[in-house]
Amino acid sequence: MGTALILLAAGLGTRMNSDMPKVLHQVAGAPLLIHAMKSAAALTPERTIVVAGHGADAVEAAAKDWDEDVRVALQTEQLGTGHAVLQAKEALAGHTGDAIVLYGDTPFIRPETLEAMIEARQSHAVVVLGFEAADPGRYGRLVTEGDDLLRIVEFKEATDEERAITLCNSGVICADAEVLMDLVGAVGNDNAAGEYYLTDIVEIARDRGLTATVVRCDEAETLGVNTRAQLAAAEAAFQVRARAELMEDGVTMTAPETVFLAHDTVIGRETIVEPNVVFGPGVTVESGARIRAFSHLEGCHVSQGAEVGPYARLRPGAELSERAKVGNFVEVKNATLAEGAKVNHLTYIGDANVGARSNIGAGTITCNYDGVFKHHTEIGADAFIGSNTMLVAPVTVGAGAMTASGSVITRDVPDGAMGIGRGRQENKAGFATRMFEKLKSMKASGPKRG
Amino acid sequence: MGTALILLAAGLGTRMNSDMPKVLHQVAGAPLLIHAMKSAAALTPERTIVVAGHGADAVEAAAKDWDEDVRVALQTEQLGTGHAVLQAKEALAGHTGDAIVLYGDTPFIRPETLEAMIEARQSHAVVVLGFEAADPGRYGRLVTEGDDLLRIVEFKEATDEERAITLCNSGVICADAEVLMDLVGAVGNDNAAGEYYLTDIVEIARDRGLTATVVRCDEAETLGVNTRAQLAAAEAAFQVRARAELMEDGVTMTAPETVFLAHDTVIGRETIVEPNVVFGPGVTVESGARIRAFSHLEGCHVSQGAEVGPYARLRPGAELSERAKVGNFVEVKNATLAEGAKVNHLTYIGDANVGARSNIGAGTITCNYDGVFKHHTEIGADAFIGSNTMLVAPVTVGAGAMTASGSVITRDVPDGAMGIGRGRQENKAGFATRMFEKLKSMKASGPKRG
Amino acid sequence: MGTALILLAAGLGTRMNSDMPKVLHQVAGAPLLIHAMKSAAALTPERTIVVAGHGADAVEAAAKDWDEDVRVALQTEQLGTGHAVLQAKEALAGHTGDAIVLYGDTPFIRPETLEAMIEARQSHAVVVLGFEAADPGRYGRLVTEGDDLLRIVEFKEATDEERAITLCNSGVICADAEVLMDLVGAVGNDNAAGEYYLTDIVEIARDRGLTATVVRCDEAETLGVNTRAQLAAAEAAFQVRARAELMEDGVTMTAPETVFLAHDTVIGRETIVEPNVVFGPGVTVESGARIRAFSHLEGCHVSQGAEVGPYARLRPGAELSERAKVGNFVEVKNATLAEGAKVNHLTYIGDANVGARSNIGAGTITCNYDGVFKHHTEIGADAFIGSNTMLVAPVTVGAGAMTASGSVITRDVPDGAMGIGRGRQENKAGFATRMFEKLKSMKASGPKRG
Repeated sequence: MGTALILLAAGLGTRMNSDMPKVLHQVAGAPLLIHAMKSAAALTPERTIVVAGHGADAVEAAAKDWDEDVRVALQTEQLGTGHAVLQAKEALAGHTGDAIVLYGDTPFIRPETLEAMIEARQSHAVVVLGFEAADPGRYGRLVTEGDDLLRIVEFKEATDEERAITLCNSGVICADAEVLMDLVGAVGNDNAAGEYYLTDIVEIARDRGLTATVVRCDEAETLGVNTRAQLAAAEAAFQVRARAELMEDGVTMTAPETVFLAHDTVIGRETIVEPNVVFGPGVTVESGARIRAFSHLEGCHVSQGAEVGPYARLRPGAELSERAKVGNFVEVKNATLAEGAKVNHLTYIGDANVGARSNIGAGTITCNYDGVFKHHTEIGADAFIGSNTMLVAPVTVGAGAMTASGSVITRDVPDGAMGIGRGRQENKAGFATRMFEKLKSMKASGPKRG
Repeated sequence: MGTALILLAAGLGTRMNSDMPKVLHQVAGAPLLIHAMKSAAALTPERTIVVAGHGADAVEAAAKDWDEDVRVALQTEQLGTGHAVLQAKEALAGHTGDAIVLYGDTPFIRPETLEAMIEARQSHAVVVLGFEAADPGRYGRLVTEGDDLLRIVEFKEATDEERAITLCNSGVICADAEVLMDLVGAVGNDNAAGEYYLTDIVEIARDRGLTATVVRCDEAETLGVNTRAQLAAAEAAFQVRARAELMEDGVTMTAPETVFLAHDTVIGRETIVEPNVVFGPGVTVESGARIRAFSHLEGCHVSQGAEVGPYARLRPGAELSERAKVGNFVEVKNATLAEGAKVNHLTYIGDANVGARSNIGAGTITCNYDGVFKHHTEIGADAFIGSNTMLVAPVTVGAGAMTASGSVITRDVPDGAMGIGRGRQENKAGFATRMFEKLKSMKASGPKRG
Repeated sequence: MGTALILLAAGLGTRMNSDMPKVLHQVAGAPLLIHAMKSAAALTPERTIVVAGHGADAVEAAAKDWDEDVRVALQTEQLGTGHAVLQAKEALAGHTGDAIVLYGDTPFIRPETLEAMIEARQSHAVVVLGFEAADPGRYGRLVTEGDDLLRIVEFKEATDEERAITLCNSGVICADAEVLMDLVGAVGNDNAAGEYYLTDIVEIARDRGLTATVVRCDEAETLGVNTRAQLAAAEAAFQVRARAELMEDGVTMTAPETVFLAHDTVIGRETIVEPNVVFGPGVTVESGARIRAFSHLEGCHVSQGAEVGPYARLRPGAELSERAKVGNFVEVKNATLAEGAKVNHLTYIGDANVGARSNIGAGTITCNYDGVFKHHTEIGADAFIGSNTMLVAPVTVGAGAMTASGSVITRDVPDGAMGIGRGRQENKAGFATRMFEKLKSMKASGPKRG
C-alpha cells in the first residue's frame, strides 16, 4: 500500500502582487510547487494530485512538466483548506493506503520528515506535522497529551493557556486516504470566515474514536511564501543550505555567498568555484574542475579538469570534455568541446562540435543562423581556427586544418589544409595623417555631429 | 507662505580621507547633498540655499545640476552650525514663511518627517527633529516637558540625569525664517570649542517667550556619513530599503542582496531581476521585462517584455522597445531597438536605430567613430545583419535587407538587398600540416619567443 | 640573536574532504601556509622551517615559491604536535636564539602579536599565546597565577574549576631554540591518543625551574581552518578586514561586501571601486583610478586616473598608464597601454604595447598566437585602430597611423599611413527578399534543421 500526495496549489497569493499563480514563482530555478513535489518524491507516491485554482492551466502544465502522471483537481472557489482537499476526492478514488496533504507554497519540508509521518501512521489515524516556533505569533496551536494530539486551535479562538503553547501547526497532515476524505467531508464552515478548515479533522477524528499524533520538524522546513520578499528569503535559505552541502562534499567556494545554485546543481569534489557564479537548472560539473568568477552556466556538463571563465556563459547543450577550456566573453550553446579543446576569448560557439586539442582563436563565430534555420559546424581534432574566423554553417573544418585570421569560411576545409578568405592588405602612405588633419580642422571650424 | 530650505554643506569631512567635499560622495549614484535635496522636495521649497565651504565650486555645480535655482551661500570659516546658518541670511532675505535647516551629509530624512515638522510649526516657534537612540552615546539630549522642548544639552555638559534621556538631537531645525535668523544672530561662542552652536537657539527662543517642540523620527533617518565605511553603510541602508520597496511593488529579485539600484531606478511589476545586476542613474524598466544576471544599466529605458542580458551593458540613450532582446557581451549606447529587435551576442550598437524584428548577428559593430566625429547607423525593419558585420557609419541598411557575414559595409544597402564585402575563400591543401610541423620543429630546436 | 620560525604543516586535513594538503588551500589568493609566513615576516626570522607530511612535495614547492630559503622537515607519521616540532630539530641545529612555533592552517595571527611574544621572552623561558574565548568549549585551558603560566590543561582532563577558565590555548609557543628542543624531547605519549603534545612542555619547563607566561591575542587571530566551510569563513574574515582598511585609507567602495581582494592588493586613495570586482594576486592600483563593476584584475598595474571596466579583465602583465581606459568585454594580457590610450569595447590585447592617446576600435584582436609561439604587436602613439582590426603579430602600426575597419593587418603600417585589407562591398538587389522567401517556404513545407 503506497502513499498518495495531495498538493494544495490553488491560492492566488494576493500579497505576491502578481498575475502568476503563487506556486509557480521560482526558488533556485524551479517553481515552489516542484520543490514540494521533490520533497515528496522520497515517498515514491503512487499518485500525485495537484489541487489547482488560480491559473490552473499554468499550474497543471508546470506540474506535468515535472511528472507527466500528475492528476489535477480543480478548486474553482477558494473555500478553505478542507474544501481544497475535498476537491481531490475524485482523483483519489481507488487509492488504498495513506494520503498526505502538502502545500505548493511550502518548498522546504525534508523527505525525512515526511517519512517520519508515514512511520507515525502505524500507531495513529491522523498525523499532523508540527514545529516548535521561536515566535508562535498567530500560528494555530497543537494541543497534546503525551503522544496524542487532542486538537488544533486557531490562534484567535485560543485561550491564554493555549496561546502559551509553542508547538504550532504546519498544516501538513497524513491519514488513510479513505479516512481523510470521510473526515474532510464532515468539516463544516461555521466560523467567522465561512471557510472549511482542514485542521478541524483532528477533533472530528477523535470524536469518532480515532487517534491523532504530532510529528515534529524544524521551523525552517515550514517556511511558506506569501510575498516576493519571502520568496527572496526562501531563495536565500535554499542557497545557504545548498552551498553548505557542496562544501561538505568537497567543493571549494571562495565566497559561497556569491554563488547561486539551482535546485538540481551537481558539482564534484575538488572543484573550485570562484566568486560571482550563477548556476541555472540542469548543470553537472565533475570533480577537479574550475569555475572562475562571473560565469553563468545553464543546462550544461563540465568534465574533470575543465576550466570555465571568467565571464563564460555556458548555455543548454554545452558539453565540455576533460581539460577543455572556455574563457572570457565566450558563449557556448548546444556544442561539444572535446578533450583539451580551448575557446579562450570573445567567441560564440553554437550548434557545433570542436575536436580534441583544437584551439579556437579570439573573435571566432559559428554563424549558425540564416534567419530561419539553424545549421551545424564541425571542427576536427587538432585544428587551429584563426582569430575572428566566421564559420558559416553548415561547414566542416578538418582535423589538423587551420583557418587564417579574419577569414569567412563558407566551404569545408579539408584535413591539414588552410582555409583563407580575406582581403589583401595595402598601405596608403600619409593617408591617416591627412585624414585626421582634415577631420580636426572640420571640428575646429564648427560642430558637425555630437 | 512657503518653506525655505537651508542645507549645510560646508564641511571638509576630514575622516573621509578625501580631497572631495564630503557632501559630494555618492550613495546610489547621487551625491549625499542631492539625497537631502530630494527629501526636502516634498515640501516644494520656495527657495533652497546651500551653505558651501570646502570645495564650494564643486558643491555649487552639483547642487545646480540638480536644481538650477539653488542659491549658494559661502561659509569661508568653519565656526559651527549656528555660524553656518547665519551665512544664509543674505540669500534668505525677503523670504516670508518657514525655514528648515538640513544637513548635506544626512541623506535619509523622510519627506513625511519634514512635513510633520512643518505641521508642528503651527503651534510652536521652533521645531527640532529628535530620535529615540538605541545607544544615545555622546549625542546631544533633548530635554522636554510634555510637548515642550526646554533645551538641547550637549553630552559633555549634561548632568547624569540628562544623560539618562534617550531622546536625542538630529540637528534638523525648523522656524520662521526671520525668527530663525534673529535667534541665530544671538548665538554666542562662549564654549570650549569657540564655536557657534545652532542648538543654542532653543534656549534663546524660550528666553524670549517663544515655545519649542520636538518631532520624532526613526534613528535610521538621521544616519550621517563621516567615513568611507559609513558611506558604504549608508549605501547598504539605501539598497535594503529600495529593494524591499520594489519587491513590495511586484518586482521579483532572485537575490536582492546582489542587485544595486540607483536613487531614481524605476522597475515595473512582474519584471524579474536576476542576481548581480547594477543599475546606474536614469533607468526605467517597464513591467514584465527580464533583467538577467551580470547586467549593467545606466540612463536607459527597457519596455514591456524586453529581455536584457546576461552580461548586457545598456549605456545612456539605450532605448529597448517591447520584446526587444539584448544578449550577452553586448553594449548598447544612444541607440533605439524597435519592437522585437534582437542583438544576442558580442556586439556594439552605438548611435543607431535598429528596426522592428531585425536580427543583429554576433560580433556586429557599428563603427560610429572616425577618431574625431561620431556618426549614425540606421537599420530598417526585418533586416538581417550577418555575424561580424562592420557598419561603417554614416550608413543605412534598408528594410528587409541583409548583410553577408564578415562584411564591411561602407555604403547604404537598399531595402531587400544583400550587402556583401569580404574576401573569397581559398583552401591551401596541406598548408596547415606543413606549417605546424615547421613551427614545432623550431620550438624543439630552441626557444624563440615566450 | 634572531628568531627561527617552525611552521607545522603536515596535517592531512581529513575534514577538508580534499586530496590537497590542508595548508595549501587558499584564502585571498594565497595558501594558508603563506598567510602564516607573512605574519611571521615581521620578525624577520633567521630561518624558517616548515614541517611537512601529507603532500610534502607540494607544500615544499609552495613554501619555496614564497621564500626560497625555507627549510623543510619531514614528519612521516602523525604523532602529535610535540612530535612534529621534534622533526625540526635537525633543520634548527646551529640556530641560536628563539624559536616560535606557528601553524600552517592558522592564517591570521597578527605581526604585533608575535612581536609581543618575543618581547615576553625577555622575562620567561616559555611564552604561550592565549585568547579569551567567547565560548571556551573544548579548547585547552591556560592555568595561570599572576604573570605565570602554570600549565596547559586539555579540556577532557580538566576539573570543573579549570573548565571555568576562559583563557584558552592557541597552540602558538615561543622559547629559546635549544631549550624548546630539549623540552619537546622530554614529552611523552602516555595519553589516550598515544600522541606527543607540544602543550606538555609548559609543565616540563616548570619542573625544571623555568618560567612560562601567556601573551593574549584576539580570538579572531587564532581562527583555524578544518573544513571548506571554515575556509570560506576565513576568506570572509580576511575580506571584511581588508576592505575596511582600504576604506580607512581613502578608497571608496560602493558595496564593499561584493569586492574581493587578494592578500597583496594595493589600492590608492580616492580610487573608486564599484560593486562586484574581483582582485586576484599581484594588483596595484594608484590613486584616483576608477574600477568599474564586474571587473577582474590579476597581476596588473593601474595608474592614476585610469578607468577599468565595467566587465574588463586585466591579466598578468597588463600595465595601464595614467588616464588609460579599458572598457567592457576587453581582455588585456602582458601589454602596456600608454597615457590616455583607450580600448573601449570587445577587444583582446595580448603581448602588445599601445602608444599614448591611441584609440583601439571595438572588436580588435592582437593575433598573438600561431599555434606554437606567441608574438608581439607594437602600436605607436596617436594611432587609430579601426573596429575589428586583426593585428597578426609580429606586426607594428606606426605613430599616427590608422587601420581601416575590418582589416587583417599582416605587414607593418608606417607612421601616418593607413593599412587596409578587406573585401570591397557589393550590393545584390533583391537578394535578401528572395532568399528569405525561399527559406520561409522551406520552413513552411517541413522541418529541416533544429
